[in-house]
Amino acid sequence: MDNFNYHIPTDICFGKGQISQLGKRMSPLAKKVLLVYGGGSIKKIGLYDQIMQQLQQAGITVFELAGIEPNPRIQTVKKGIAICKKEGIDAVLAAGGGSTIDCAKVVSAGACYDGDAWDLVLDRNKIKKAIPIAAILTLAATGSEMDGFAVISDMDKHEKWGTGNDLTKPVFSIMDPQYTFSVSKYQTAAGSSDIMSHTLENYFNNTKGAFLQARLAEGILKTVIKYAPVAVEHPDDYEARANLMWASSLAINGLIRYGESTAWTVHPMEHELSAFYDITHGAGLALLTPYWMEYVLSEKTAGKFAEYGVNVWGIDSSKEPMAIAKEAIAKTREFFLSIGMPSHLKDLGIDETHFDVMSKKAANGGLRFGFVPLKKEDVKKIYTMAL
Amino acid sequence: MDNFNYHIPTDICFGKGQISQLGKRMSPLAKKVLLVYGGGSIKKIGLYDQIMQQLQQAGITVFELAGIEPNPRIQTVKKGIAICKKEGIDAVLAAGGGSTIDCAKVVSAGACYDGDAWDLVLDRNKIKKAIPIAAILTLAATGSEMDGFAVISDMDKHEKWGTGNDLTKPVFSIMDPQYTFSVSKYQTAAGSSDIMSHTLENYFNNTKGAFLQARLAEGILKTVIKYAPVAVEHPDDYEARANLMWASSLAINGLIRYGESTAWTVHPMEHELSAFYDITHGAGLALLTPYWMEYVLSEKTAGKFAEYGVNVWGIDSSKEPMAIAKEAIAKTREFFLSIGMPSHLKDLGIDETHFDVMSKKAANGGLRFGFVPLKKEDVKKIYTMAL
Repeated sequence: MDNFNYHIPTDICFGKGQISQLGKRMSPLAKKVLLVYGGGSIKKIGLYDQIMQQLQQAGITVFELAGIEPNPRIQTVKKGIAICKKEGIDAVLAAGGGSTIDCAKVVSAGACYDGDAWDLVLDRNKIKKAIPIAAILTLAATGSEMDGFAVISDMDKHEKWGTGNDLTKPVFSIMDPQYTFSVSKYQTAAGSSDIMSHTLENYFNNTKGAFLQARLAEGILKTVIKYAPVAVEHPDDYEARANLMWASSLAINGLIRYGESTAWTVHPMEHELSAFYDITHGAGLALLTPYWMEYVLSEKTAGKFAEYGVNVWGIDSSKEPMAIAKEAIAKTREFFLSIGMPSHLKDLGIDETHFDVMSKKAANGGLRFGFVPLKKEDVKKIYTMAL
Repeated sequence: MDNFNYHIPTDICFGKGQISQLGKRMSPLAKKVLLVYGGGSIKKIGLYDQIMQQLQQAGITVFELAGIEPNPRIQTVKKGIAICKKEGIDAVLAAGGGSTIDCAKVVSAGACYDGDAWDLVLDRNKIKKAIPIAAILTLAATGSEMDGFAVISDMDKHEKWGTGNDLTKPVFSIMDPQYTFSVSKYQTAAGSSDIMSHTLENYFNNTKGAFLQARLAEGILKTVIKYAPVAVEHPDDYEARANLMWASSLAINGLIRYGESTAWTVHPMEHELSAFYDITHGAGLALLTPYWMEYVLSEKTAGKFAEYGVNVWGIDSSKEPMAIAKEAIAKTREFFLSIGMPSHLKDLGIDETHFDVMSKKAANGGLRFGFVPLKKEDVKKIYTMAL
């Protein structure tokens, strides 16, 4: 097990009706709040009115930044920053999924930064200060409600990068699984795939002796495997929505990563897909993950895949590791297909046109430190397998 | 899944050599620190000198409260409070196991309280303020390094009660598994039993749909089952010590309890044993747990025990739930025996003399809200089974 520093300060208010805590939790932080949200689904489900009532009762003035995109744009971030600076905003409240929360995080940092906000996306160390961030989650997926990360895109440049640090961790997050009842089947499946991917990318690592972390990760994987199909079929199943929502936070808040050397591998490959084609992040992850698994499977890695197969998928441990590994990968693919995720790039209208530049950019990240280190040629091969 | 509020603010510095962070982390908190420790083992392993060097280099004046008992006494707590008040102490630093940290917590609260410190043990709501607490852990067991709980005894009255709230959560804890290399086989086994017991007491609950929490608990149980025997046999096995140490924190910091209605059952029964006979807490838990399991096993509860048997002990799931349940309980008993824990009260010099009063006091706590509600007659029967 590696050394680590555990630091998860975000206060979570989880469960039915927790919106009632909004006013009293926001009061000590702010007099003027920027409410950040997406396409208006929070109005449809009545959340917008609940927020306004809570904040107004607490004597807080609300400004708005609406229309956050599924892959949030730097241009939108900049609009939010301008409002913060002009109006002297004290805190940013995101109401939505990961995109909205990510946008709010960089707005909060940009509000305290004099240069171009894109600098903060390219270099997280430039974030030296941020106004407080709070979140109300409406989609179980990115875990942004309980970590400091944010992914922002500049679609004009086909750029999509992760940023954030301890300063951009939400002070509190309200997580009421009922707000996810209206999430579509496709987005439910994509969000669940994102949770699976976060967990798998931490699980497949080379650190010796991080046994406990691996068992916790398996617990999260089993939870998603059990409940994603339930939520897709029965959108208002509270138990399924609650388990998925809490799994989304624990998959990426550090709990299963502390003590391990991990590096994002499938995520950077997917970021290129959504930067070039604006596809749903989770769908891209569900698509790429089994191909990545097949590509990195070898005599050397079969043992870890077999551990995954036995402990997560319940495959008979008396079989040969390589056989278990292959069965585990097949089950992973079947799972993503079963919840309606795509399995070929062509189905998303993606061909080889940009493979060279996408592979090069993807390989610029942490891929060389991954479970199996990958170069741009490897990434291109994985994209090609996925066609 | 029940509603919950997640709040784990303690900063953890985990791993080899993390003592190097002590000075810089303590500096912003205090100019005068009360160092609380036990029987001197921290001197034997060189930790005392490391602490002094770190604090002195940080310009901090150190006062000392040594000799904390394995079941810390209110009388000792009061000595610490007197030093705090007399010297104007800003923070308390505990270096030791759970007893030492527990003592430090009530000292820190007592330093801000004008009445009798025993009030704070009997009623945690009377803790309204506390000076900052930090911990350096030398025993994987109670999880006190990452929660607000403290258990304090008055041996003259045979009283042992739990107290603490958010104010008594350590600000930071340094967890270097190497400090546990010198822990004896018996104390290693007792500490591991304590971790098992914390996890089991949360795992066996009646909340519907807290699936994720159950899977995380199973991960902790599997970790202790794997590594406790290793640490008993090979005291300087870093991997084993690290996994046990981190498991000790996660077992009781709230992670596996959030979203569930749980109530301590075996713990209150054990507290009476150690209050009357001053035995090692973890040994008492290891002894009582299998008897408690046998006592509460019924057609109604067999399903949960079978879940435990299949997921934790790998028992064939095609068997009848009752058969799996019995096998799981037998394996639990075998496990505790295998690491050297006692299985009969007589072996600890305990007979039925105080059973009536012990049963009555134990049943005063949360036992009526437990997985299977218990009254004093039930407790007496369990004690009797355990003779």
